[in-house]
Amino acid sequence: MCRWIAYRGETRAFEQYVTEPVHSLIAQSLRSLEATARTNGDGFGLGWYGIHPEPGLYRETRPAWSDENLRYLCRHLESHMFFAHVRAATCTAVTRQNCHPFVCGQWMFMHNGFIGSWNRLRRRVESMISDEFYPSRLGTTDSEAVFLAMMGAGLVEDPVGATRRVMSELCKLVNEEDYREPVRFTSALTNGHDLFAFRFAENDSANSLYYRTAGDGLVVASEPLDRESGWEEVPTNHVLIGAASGSIDIVPFLPSELRQLGEERWSAQTVVAGAGKGK
Amino acid sequence: MCRWIAYRGETRAFEQYVTEPVHSLIAQSLRSLEATARTNGDGFGLGWYGIHPEPGLYRETRPAWSDENLRYLCRHLESHMFFAHVRAATCTAVTRQNCHPFVCGQWMFMHNGFIGSWNRLRRRVESMISDEFYPSRLGTTDSEAVFLAMMGAGLVEDPVGATRRVMSELCKLVNEEDYREPVRFTSALTNGHDLFAFRFAENDSANSLYYRTAGDGLVVASEPLDRESGWEEVPTNHVLIGAASGSIDIVPFLPSELRQLGEERWSAQTVVAGAGKGK
Amino acid sequence: MCRWIAYRGETRAFEQYVTEPVHSLIAQSLRSLEATARTNGDGFGLGWYGIHPEPGLYRETRPAWSDENLRYLCRHLESHMFFAHVRAATCTAVTRQNCHPFVCGQWMFMHNGFIGSWNRLRRRVESMISDEFYPSRLGTTDSEAVFLAMMGAGLVEDPVGATRRVMSELCKLVNEEDYREPVRFTSALTNGHDLFAFRFAENDSANSLYYRTAGDGLVVASEPLDRESGWEEVPTNHVLIGAASGSIDIVPFLPSELRQLGEERWSAQTVVAGAGKGK
Amino acid sequence: MCRWIAYRGETRAFEQYVTEPVHSLIAQSLRSLEATARTNGDGFGLGWYGIHPEPGLYRETRPAWSDENLRYLCRHLESHMFFAHVRAATCTAVTRQNCHPFVCGQWMFMHNGFIGSWNRLRRRVESMISDEFYPSRLGTTDSEAVFLAMMGAGLVEDPVGATRRVMSELCKLVNEEDYREPVRFTSALTNGHDLFAFRFAENDSANSLYYRTAGDGLVVASEPLDRESGWEEVPTNHVLIGAASGSIDIVPFLPSELRQLGEERWSAQTVVAGAGKGK
Repeated sequence: MCRWIAYRGETRAFEQYVTEPVHSLIAQSLRSLEATARTNGDGFGLGWYGIHPEPGLYRETRPAWSDENLRYLCRHLESHMFFAHVRAATCTAVTRQNCHPFVCGQWMFMHNGFIGSWNRLRRRVESMISDEFYPSRLGTTDSEAVFLAMMGAGLVEDPVGATRRVMSELCKLVNEEDYREPVRFTSALTNGHDLFAFRFAENDSANSLYYRTAGDGLVVASEPLDRESGWEEVPTNHVLIGAASGSIDIVPFLPSELRQLGEERWSAQTVVAGAGKGK
Repeated sequence: MCRWIAYRGETRAFEQYVTEPVHSLIAQSLRSLEATARTNGDGFGLGWYGIHPEPGLYRETRPAWSDENLRYLCRHLESHMFFAHVRAATCTAVTRQNCHPFVCGQWMFMHNGFIGSWNRLRRRVESMISDEFYPSRLGTTDSEAVFLAMMGAGLVEDPVGATRRVMSELCKLVNEEDYREPVRFTSALTNGHDLFAFRFAENDSANSLYYRTAGDGLVVASEPLDRESGWEEVPTNHVLIGAASGSIDIVPFLPSELRQLGEERWSAQTVVAGAGKGK
Repeated sequence: MCRWIAYRGETRAFEQYVTEPVHSLIAQSLRSLEATARTNGDGFGLGWYGIHPEPGLYRETRPAWSDENLRYLCRHLESHMFFAHVRAATCTAVTRQNCHPFVCGQWMFMHNGFIGSWNRLRRRVESMISDEFYPSRLGTTDSEAVFLAMMGAGLVEDPVGATRRVMSELCKLVNEEDYREPVRFTSALTNGHDLFAFRFAENDSANSLYYRTAGDGLVVASEPLDRESGWEEVPTNHVLIGAASGSIDIVPFLPSELRQLGEERWSAQTVVAGAGKGK
Repeated sequence: MCRWIAYRGETRAFEQYVTEPVHSLIAQSLRSLEATARTNGDGFGLGWYGIHPEPGLYRETRPAWSDENLRYLCRHLESHMFFAHVRAATCTAVTRQNCHPFVCGQWMFMHNGFIGSWNRLRRRVESMISDEFYPSRLGTTDSEAVFLAMMGAGLVEDPVGATRRVMSELCKLVNEEDYREPVRFTSALTNGHDLFAFRFAENDSANSLYYRTAGDGLVVASEPLDRESGWEEVPTNHVLIGAASGSIDIVPFLPSELRQLGEERWSAQTVVAGAGKGK
């Protein structure tokens, strides 16, 4: 069910986070500790912002643990903002185009989870993608479809709002009639400056999500990368916002409809992480 | 722009047609003679009917010319009906799911050509796929979408009619407003018993298509596999029907609308191949 | 550290043994129960005897669990003698040429284990390959080198003897000076008629090996494929010989030098499996 | 028979040389103009010097023309010294380990050509690799074997001399008895500072080699990357030395034995390229 890591901070080589830690993402590809699928061997991906205006991508279908290229690239690529992802395929093919992260213009997205019964909902989720972004659909995953739907829902202007609107639509779909299908949406999103990490679920428990700050740097990951202290959990149904300014906020994230019901309940609980650092 | 071969006849090992001839499909993958793209190195596929109720498939993304597995399989697999295809990708990804042939239930399809401007038409062609067959869409090619649309248009009961109906819809799409986008549809279709080979184009010249009979066997191919005699061309806008009974007919194939205009013109020209063998 | 299965008996489709059982080889590729490496995701291979004079091979670098081709082939390929292997690479590259089984002429071999410290011994093990068989070295594994050394040591005339001679040489190498390096050699060998399955170790415990007979059929596997009865263990330092005649014998297997010491000890313990069936 | 490009100069993104030119290396992978093999689709590789002490490598078995990762990496990777290579396999497998460039410590090497009859000579060329460097043999190509033999022949202290010594040995092998087997050795070698490009052949014509200087930059390539002026040919049996100092010299390169015969002949012909720039 995938494992991922997102980094925002001073420009760093990827290896420090992706390949070197005791329980690095590569180690997690072979044996993760907190995932439903212990083995995440159905491809992987790197995404980053660098010297070219558009983000870079390296996606491969072989398991991350045996990819020599990945080791070389993690030593030589560096960025102030990068994503890395190892995949455990749910029901779509093992192709590069189905590996995360996904890129659309300046935006990059990766996901750990699933969207109800994909065979039942696929067509309707794809219909949520606006014509403008449909040519960007290169693969067949639910994750990419949701990302492109978010793009069309106004992601560029209002990332959290667009994500909330799409999740709200999805919640309607999985809850229609007598269906109570699960949605798990533990995902990362960035424009190269701000980092958004969502931990949300509907009709199910949410996939794990942790973060750690060190100096200027922020690391968000499916599982802690080592046994050292400093890892904190992002609460279920919250979004961590690591702004370009350096502030880190953790605020409730609920689809719009549910939110109206829970607004007061949640508003009192806004968590501010990295005290003395958040705004 | 792809090259392919289809065989129907006595049970034979594939090698006799796929790997051994002077200008075999493997040789064509490295250098075809009659295709727009000389190199067909973007993956390949084998499809066949054998001991299992469902057809078999072997599809790979690497070039056919360097695949050791292909050579072994062509020596050991045998069938009374098999397809082989080498791909030159037009605008979709090089994945196994985008390699031909495509299978849906008992039916198998492969294609050489393209459908207008895929970015413009993709959504509308995909909408031609009925809900019943949408879960069978594993890749992202125009070819697979057209095949699944054909499935929903009644392929099982009326293969040629269903194909004609879908082509008719496509012709409307590529000819709407001021568009005069090209369609090239040189394809093979089978249910394991009957073999249908279409050579059709709209707003463009049709891709090449040849056939040869020998004893009970029928070989249909994008290009002759050798310099020996016996290769005949399938005329543009015709379909070759190699029935399970052994008969081989070549009849006009035009989308229904156009057909009404040209009915008389074409009806006089029905070509009957394999004289003495056709009905 | 690899898992494998070998079948000899009536001609059968591979699926019955490779993909369908509860704890099939495919299931073992994702999670084996008795191996040092739980995940065997570094490629796989099928080898079989069929309609062509030379054995067939299908080897792939991706994990067996996600290979659609494998599923199709296991449904459509059938043989009276086939091998299947999932790999957990020890220290050599994940390439098709390093995947098992290996074929040389009429002989086929696959292995689960390792040969001492490969970097130290590689050159000397490779020098054990005779010039005649050196061009057959397509990969870089210890397993292939040992197999080709066995070929040169007279495998065709005396399979068990040739294997014993090569193991004897290897034991000298790993025991020279102060080295006491481990050798694990749990392997299968066939000429298409007779099946030999070795379970041997030096300076280490031997990797697991089981067999089951049913009617005419013999299945030898690293781990039982299901929880049903009938699975028996091949004892350490023994070789199971499933002859073309149908007889199944399990006899001690010790390198020649050690054997001289243990000859009397072992000769009394010859195990005859499948009582009433063995000679 | 492979095409390659080597760059030394100001730090630049690879795309300017690898993917963007009219007749870029990617274009050459699909259709080269001056090579025996027109299609170079048997894998490719990038090698470069960057932020990590050891050089970086990206090697893939699929054709360069369809690799999305390559396009992204060429936009985001930059270096003062990089190699890029597209392969047309001669007789060894299409694996990443057989793709060029090869790296050993600080040194990087790539090759276009072949070494006599590889099956006949393989064992003897491999025996030229010293024990120190034998563990670095990851693949099975003649090119990698020659490179590692060069490493053992003193490459670090005397790159051109070591190369000459190894070529001299090879010439003896291909000329022994009545053999007059061809050697083609058009190759690039670097330690990250100095660039050496050899164009040599024995019993055959040499593969093409060109270079162009622009400002501080030096590009050496199998074929000109565009139709602009400035491309000059490296003469047969010469080595171009692009030193870290910026000087560019083209001097005769002949194996030591032959050299003694031709010393006077060649010494008068030392070509100094980039007049006013060479030392």
